[in-house]
Amino acid sequence: MGDGAVLVVEDETMILLDLESALEEAGFEVVGANNAASAAATYDADPEKFKALVTDIRLGSGETGWELARRFRRINNVLPVVYISGDGAAHWAHEGVPNSIMIAKPFFMPQIVTAVSTLLNHLSIIDPS
Amino acid sequence: MGDGAVLVVEDETMILLDLESALEEAGFEVVGANNAASAAATYDADPEKFKALVTDIRLGSGETGWELARRFRRINNVLPVVYISGDGAAHWAHEGVPNSIMIAKPFFMPQIVTAVSTLLNHLSIIDPS
Amino acid sequence: MGDGAVLVVEDETMILLDLESALEEAGFEVVGANNAASAAATYDADPEKFKALVTDIRLGSGETGWELARRFRRINNVLPVVYISGDGAAHWAHEGVPNSIMIAKPFFMPQIVTAVSTLLNHLSIIDPS
Amino acid sequence: MGDGAVLVVEDETMILLDLESALEEAGFEVVGANNAASAAATYDADPEKFKALVTDIRLGSGETGWELARRFRRINNVLPVVYISGDGAAHWAHEGVPNSIMIAKPFFMPQIVTAVSTLLNHLSIIDPS
Amino acid sequence: MGDGAVLVVEDETMILLDLESALEEAGFEVVGANNAASAAATYDADPEKFKALVTDIRLGSGETGWELARRFRRINNVLPVVYISGDGAAHWAHEGVPNSIMIAKPFFMPQIVTAVSTLLNHLSIIDPS
Amino acid sequence: MGDGAVLVVEDETMILLDLESALEEAGFEVVGANNAASAAATYDADPEKFKALVTDIRLGSGETGWELARRFRRINNVLPVVYISGDGAAHWAHEGVPNSIMIAKPFFMPQIVTAVSTLLNHLSIIDPS
Repeated sequence: MGDGAVLVVEDETMILLDLESALEEAGFEVVGANNAASAAATYDADPEKFKALVTDIRLGSGETGWELARRFRRINNVLPVVYISGDGAAHWAHEGVPNSIMIAKPFFMPQIVTAVSTLLNHLSIIDPS
Repeated sequence: MGDGAVLVVEDETMILLDLESALEEAGFEVVGANNAASAAATYDADPEKFKALVTDIRLGSGETGWELARRFRRINNVLPVVYISGDGAAHWAHEGVPNSIMIAKPFFMPQIVTAVSTLLNHLSIIDPS
Repeated sequence: MGDGAVLVVEDETMILLDLESALEEAGFEVVGANNAASAAATYDADPEKFKALVTDIRLGSGETGWELARRFRRINNVLPVVYISGDGAAHWAHEGVPNSIMIAKPFFMPQIVTAVSTLLNHLSIIDPS
Repeated sequence: MGDGAVLVVEDETMILLDLESALEEAGFEVVGANNAASAAATYDADPEKFKALVTDIRLGSGETGWELARRFRRINNVLPVVYISGDGAAHWAHEGVPNSIMIAKPFFMPQIVTAVSTLLNHLSIIDPS
Repeated sequence: MGDGAVLVVEDETMILLDLESALEEAGFEVVGANNAASAAATYDADPEKFKALVTDIRLGSGETGWELARRFRRINNVLPVVYISGDGAAHWAHEGVPNSIMIAKPFFMPQIVTAVSTLLNHLSIIDPS
Repeated sequence: MGDGAVLVVEDETMILLDLESALEEAGFEVVGANNAASAAATYDADPEKFKALVTDIRLGSGETGWELARRFRRINNVLPVVYISGDGAAHWAHEGVPNSIMIAKPFFMPQIVTAVSTLLNHLSIIDPS
């Protein structure tokens, strides 16, 4: 059904692979990145391609997931954002962007599928033009 | 789990088949129709069978998806309605029915699954009798 | 705080006056109309002035509240719409526009104030550009 | 605008009077009760009159606010319910009814006005017949 | 992705098996129980393990699904609760707990998956600490 | 009803006075500040006193409203936040905090009252402990 993809950013390879296969099996097109610099380069190369962001918070060196989300929202201010956090989600209240979803690890894969779908559908609702 | 089905109306055969198989794989019972007249006849033959409507807007000759949804809502005023639009969703704001979801093409299949499920669950919540 | 007004359409003069004074006392600027033709002329003379519509359904001769709302939504597809209905709200499910609120008579005035405010605030949220 | 009233149940007379005057000033019709037995008798004498319940949890001897709400919801299963709690709201998660709002003391009066209005408007939306 | 499981309580074996396999296929870890006593013992043995409850209302002898949900909410006051009802959902309005979802039989399996996912995601949002 | 106040931050004196009187008339306790440094000092002197923040974005020299909100959310991660913006709300999507409301100028005073009340009530709902 489409052009367009979900950008998934996660520095733990096993989790990245799990996320990619779960989202693809559910029916999403997925592009993965295992660090912030790669995610930013991928996004910037074709911003319109990316319909949603799923990102871990800690991404090794470089920007955090908080910073990536703000960066991409400056370019597309209705981009759906789902954060995944491994060490408590306490920072979301001041680091997160509006209309985002925070999912704490450990999580179940259908939570990610539902979160991305819900934000995309909400977007369709609120932006009928 | 059941009697009951989702009515899917789409005049492009390939998309109709994709929708049917995605919804069935997710666990829905599905009845497809590839034009408005056929959809209306199918619905009218057994209105209680249909638990939700997923419809494209442009359906070739005959009624549009907007008209179908209003027609069915006159019979079942809590019927969940999901519109799929191929050419901009600008008309939803004045042609759509309340408590419906508009999904713009191109879309990802889990958006449809989540949209139908969410509307059905919302219905259960709001109509406890 | 402003330029801008809420357009209130109601053919029963006493109710129209009550609505106007309740909304004004709460802090809204209000323009009243007691029939559909007058409402349409008022709106068309300065569409950007009107930030929300509160309308009865039955408006004597001429268009209904359902038709007025669709007419104005064609011009401003994010216009907040609050319907007031005196004889059952059963038609809202197929005659109403998306993201509208239906309030059945008899009602309490703060319901109208809250309905208009909530829809305006929701609008601010969803349309950050 | 109406027949119909909000039933307010609170055993502290000063707070009851404050609630009554704030709700009336906002535009509600209000009937007050300062204990559970009186509230139940008042409600049972004319169940259709009461459009919403605002109740403290601890009401001296007799039933609690939790029990009153369940009692009235058995009669009117869409009755809007707003609980006010003076000593922590921890029990709401297992004692409260669905689609209710819990407001912790101390609170601001407009919270009560908005809570009742929002639940009443939501009711109008979900029950179009 | 995890430790943690959804507790599914259903006294009809065939439905229990269907629920278990649908939830597992979607990506949840599931523990099933076919009566209330077994469910309570399972939950009490390791309350932190259980991230959500899906329960039928009528469970043969012993506690009902209403009672089980209240019991577990006393221990974990943000536990997501999804009720499944075979004989009308009329009692949910006074027997259900806040922030729960009621799904009437017959239902489609993706409704359960979406309901559990949505409540879990909502939890993540509202409890960032 | 209480101890506790809403902190209102606005560098235009006339608007600040209007906001204060509208919120007080509605029933809130209000503390005003006309620049960011004063707002921060006021908040830090008694963080538990402040139940909600209403802030303009541009506050003259010093921190912006975006920065103030993040600062206070680090201390109280469920603080209700309402932003008022005079020059387009486009930055909210990447500068705002989650679960905040953005209201564009010009606005009607009841929007502010409803926004603060709704966020406070939502807080009560989601934080029952």
